[in-house]
Amino acid sequence: MNPPSDIHTEIRTGDPTGLHRVLDDTVVLPQAAQRLDTRAELWPDEVRVRVERLNLDAASFRQLERKHTDADGRVDGSAVRAEVLDIVATRGKMQNPETGSGGMLVGTVEAVGPESPLGLEVGDRVATLVSLTLTPLVIEDGLARWDGRSEQVPCDGRAVLFGRSIAAVIPDDLDPALSLSVMDVCGAPALTARVVGEYVERGRHEDRAPTVAVIGGAGKSGSLSLAAARAAGAARTIGVVPHQGEHDLLTGAGLADAVAVADARDPVALRDAVTAAGGPADVTVVCVDVPGCEGGAILATAEGGTVIFFSMATSFSAAALGAEGLAADVRMLVGNGYVPGHAAYAMELLRADSGVRGLFERRL
Amino acid sequence: MNPPSDIHTEIRTGDPTGLHRVLDDTVVLPQAAQRLDTRAELWPDEVRVRVERLNLDAASFRQLERKHTDADGRVDGSAVRAEVLDIVATRGKMQNPETGSGGMLVGTVEAVGPESPLGLEVGDRVATLVSLTLTPLVIEDGLARWDGRSEQVPCDGRAVLFGRSIAAVIPDDLDPALSLSVMDVCGAPALTARVVGEYVERGRHEDRAPTVAVIGGAGKSGSLSLAAARAAGAARTIGVVPHQGEHDLLTGAGLADAVAVADARDPVALRDAVTAAGGPADVTVVCVDVPGCEGGAILATAEGGTVIFFSMATSFSAAALGAEGLAADVRMLVGNGYVPGHAAYAMELLRADSGVRGLFERRL
Repeated sequence: MNPPSDIHTEIRTGDPTGLHRVLDDTVVLPQAAQRLDTRAELWPDEVRVRVERLNLDAASFRQLERKHTDADGRVDGSAVRAEVLDIVATRGKMQNPETGSGGMLVGTVEAVGPESPLGLEVGDRVATLVSLTLTPLVIEDGLARWDGRSEQVPCDGRAVLFGRSIAAVIPDDLDPALSLSVMDVCGAPALTARVVGEYVERGRHEDRAPTVAVIGGAGKSGSLSLAAARAAGAARTIGVVPHQGEHDLLTGAGLADAVAVADARDPVALRDAVTAAGGPADVTVVCVDVPGCEGGAILATAEGGTVIFFSMATSFSAAALGAEGLAADVRMLVGNGYVPGHAAYAMELLRADSGVRGLFERRL
Repeated sequence: MNPPSDIHTEIRTGDPTGLHRVLDDTVVLPQAAQRLDTRAELWPDEVRVRVERLNLDAASFRQLERKHTDADGRVDGSAVRAEVLDIVATRGKMQNPETGSGGMLVGTVEAVGPESPLGLEVGDRVATLVSLTLTPLVIEDGLARWDGRSEQVPCDGRAVLFGRSIAAVIPDDLDPALSLSVMDVCGAPALTARVVGEYVERGRHEDRAPTVAVIGGAGKSGSLSLAAARAAGAARTIGVVPHQGEHDLLTGAGLADAVAVADARDPVALRDAVTAAGGPADVTVVCVDVPGCEGGAILATAEGGTVIFFSMATSFSAAALGAEGLAADVRMLVGNGYVPGHAAYAMELLRADSGVRGLFERRL
């Protein structure tokens, strides 16, 4: 097989992690890099994607929105757009310098290197399941079709996937925006199901299944995590939401055995709400993108329980020192966005559960 | 029993987490608070300690040292001291605003509230095992006996423990500085032993014990973690150190089956060093207090393996996005400083292993 004509043949050896695209002076992985090489030519194991749409990480978009909101509460969408363009032009990737987070993208494969292990073909419509924070990206349309007021960003441009990247082909029978929005958070339900499954296994001989609390249960990763917890065998699922509107939404979706309203940043309120709803939880899943939820999540969790932090607003030291300071014997997991089979599992939950699907569709 | 005369009887109800000492406008736990109430009077479940010595968290002390180093590399010890005094006076606790971390203290119990569940008596010599970041503290001697050039800070002052705090009585037969220095990091070996034990259990029917890599293996938490991994049944222990001097030290201590030299901030170098030493690791323990070690730790870990982050310099988003970006199916744990029995376990390792003890004693 002859390599496509645009396969790059420079001296720098390709690395499946994308190290060869890092332009920093020190050796860092693409995610930690200040700047990536965005050239269109591919190393032999790379794939180039024609971008249709970016899906900004919620924590990142909120930060940009807050920053460009005036005293009267009006968001300056063009300023948000200008900042995203500036970040991508400067860094060669979309990584919010404040939150450190990125998002994902959807597009069509336009070139595949001869050594790519991803199994993609030219013309495949894909969503990238690795973060934008490590994806070389060039925006070519100035984001002219985006008003700067939504996380979903119509975009023409190009992006590069490495050998060790992940991309999922988008199903034909679903609205692509719906698929993208599910795949964006698909690590959360997969890891939740795995952890809950461990507790189910462990509790089997005592005939005792775990209680699972999901903080931010009406959100995207939250609603999928609730569905995953139930599917994995949780005895009781508790969704915690910030206000009555989300309470009614989540109750209507039928995803949780109990729905509680509490400010997740208030540790005592969160503990009390989860307790009143049937807690403490054996597994607490944090899916709210606001800082300061670590203490409450720890207090809402039973001794020997597990907290899974999926929010990018999580502070490592607040979690570590918080648990120590509360003498809380809880296991705390950094929510890894990658679990094998995560995208397929999340799509399966969406198809099987009309409650989840309804919550996602009303967001489109 | 009559309460001691200095038991506080104000209207604010005491909470075992110390919430009643938080002076912030919003409800946050003491660790997250900007400022704590340091009054000497005790709520009924509190304990007051006469402070002898503070032990600053390594990441915090390094940051202060770096900040007050001039162009010629000279550390201005009085500036370091002034900053610590200023932090404690302003916040009512020692919490480095840059690193978010604190440290611990040693002292003598001077008053015990009638409802304290800690089992301490007046006159007990104790080390606090909860962080200084949530411990009300007043320094009364201006740190006059400290030159600002070491993490160990002689100090006269008072501190308060809450109902849900942890303090360990210091053994009579060991140098108190040695005990303090062990207890400061005692969460790491306890959690390492627990996690390694899980892998040993799981691998038993395949007759396969885990490989454990400790990044920063010659340090305090690192050397104890190596000893804990071996005691818990690791098949092979690998210590990674930054330079030849530590290589020789750790080799001499006999704590690891292999010792490798690598810069932990260089992900590819770290991966290659661990692999060459017999990796990838089933369990990787990160004990170095420098930022940027997340990617290398993930790459050094086998699929299905676990990374335990004990360094306060760990970035949550770098870990979460790093694993996702590398499509790495690894479990990542936030190193909880509290595991029941952790202090006693660490002291046991120190007494049993002359290699560990030697490494600790040469630091005093």
